[in-house]
Amino acid sequence: MKKSLHVCLSPALLPLFKVEDYIVVVIDIFRATSSICYGIENGAEAIIPVSQVEECAAYREKGLDYLLAAERDGSVVDGFDFGNSPFSYTKEKVEGKTIVLTTTNGTHALHLSRAAKKIVIGSFLNLTSLSNWLKTQNENILLVCAGWKNNFNLEDTLFAGAVIEQLKEESFVLDDAAIAANDLFRIGRNDINQYLKKTSHGERLKKLGIEKDIEFCLQIDLTTAIPVLEGEKLVKLV
Amino acid sequence: MKKSLHVCLSPALLPLFKVEDYIVVVIDIFRATSSICYGIENGAEAIIPVSQVEECAAYREKGLDYLLAAERDGSVVDGFDFGNSPFSYTKEKVEGKTIVLTTTNGTHALHLSRAAKKIVIGSFLNLTSLSNWLKTQNENILLVCAGWKNNFNLEDTLFAGAVIEQLKEESFVLDDAAIAANDLFRIGRNDINQYLKKTSHGERLKKLGIEKDIEFCLQIDLTTAIPVLEGEKLVKLV
Repeated sequence: MKKSLHVCLSPALLPLFKVEDYIVVVIDIFRATSSICYGIENGAEAIIPVSQVEECAAYREKGLDYLLAAERDGSVVDGFDFGNSPFSYTKEKVEGKTIVLTTTNGTHALHLSRAAKKIVIGSFLNLTSLSNWLKTQNENILLVCAGWKNNFNLEDTLFAGAVIEQLKEESFVLDDAAIAANDLFRIGRNDINQYLKKTSHGERLKKLGIEKDIEFCLQIDLTTAIPVLEGEKLVKLV
Repeated sequence: MKKSLHVCLSPALLPLFKVEDYIVVVIDIFRATSSICYGIENGAEAIIPVSQVEECAAYREKGLDYLLAAERDGSVVDGFDFGNSPFSYTKEKVEGKTIVLTTTNGTHALHLSRAAKKIVIGSFLNLTSLSNWLKTQNENILLVCAGWKNNFNLEDTLFAGAVIEQLKEESFVLDDAAIAANDLFRIGRNDINQYLKKTSHGERLKKLGIEKDIEFCLQIDLTTAIPVLEGEKLVKLV
């Protein structure tokens, strides 16, 4: 039987899917899953996603050598080492370290997907490596767009469409959201940054002064590591 | 201040919008809102949307000369006069009548939108008439796609994109879903029926043997009436 390749356009739609039937790819392009891919590529031992800022802060008391990262509404939360800018996840900063991370959207989507067969992390940075791995799995695949506070957003959807483009020859059954995501990617693919500039989200991100982060997150195939959830931790898939 | 033109891609996402700030357009192309437009155009006095089959059946006891229409999972419910095929809403059948209607998706979306400034009904049948009226309103507009059991679907999204296309010169602020819907419409516009054939929903509808209904529902500007909710009833906007 043909496998399914489905797209969940917002975490609020996750209850419609029986996640235990899928490998889930969590997508939060600006910026959580891009930074996670970059951090794991750069030798972070593990990244622990937590839902609440308080949970993240609690790791401070544990006295371990964790890096604590907390982002809300696009900014680093006061009192934390860093947020979710990919430039905080360089080799110098993260190699050999464990990072505890909470973000507005990405970690939320991840926690809602817990029942999945497997959870991996996707971004333009690891697009081809991730897609090639998915091709070998012979499982149903659910691409979960983290969105912005449960709202649909274009950057996560376009990335889902990019994965679908790479898996097209594999004869998956697509749902309507997958067809839409792929068609949107095909419209925007020649200059994704330019395409996204017309979005409301693009406006909002520009106000945050993170244009460099955005450019960074739209680089295709800068990395090959695939972060996978093992227990409570995201680690490099081997 | 510029008005907003937003798209809600599934009833499950409606809680993200403050519906009282918008005129809501309810969209359920296959087939509820197409049939409602056609019925009102053909002189139905009113259409009463109800959520439950039982509510619909209860009108039988009231002894009034109502037509009772109930659809679930694409078929007419046993014991009802008809479902939501547009061919049941011809002049001969509905002129001067009041119809009580319950459908899988459309009436659900309608009831969830109750708090809106105004609720009107859209379909390809009344596209230009509806769009022209929206242009004169100077209000925020929310296009609510009924979807299929809360899942995103392409036909409702494409219609939202068609409305946006007509309102483009009016300098609304679009959200990401509106941008996506409009871009998808622009891909599919030359042959919407052909575009929709690749969808899962298209497959499902084909199995129901309602290709003629589908072709009918994709006719642009067959009608001019705009159904509007007044109290409990959808009536012709005057």
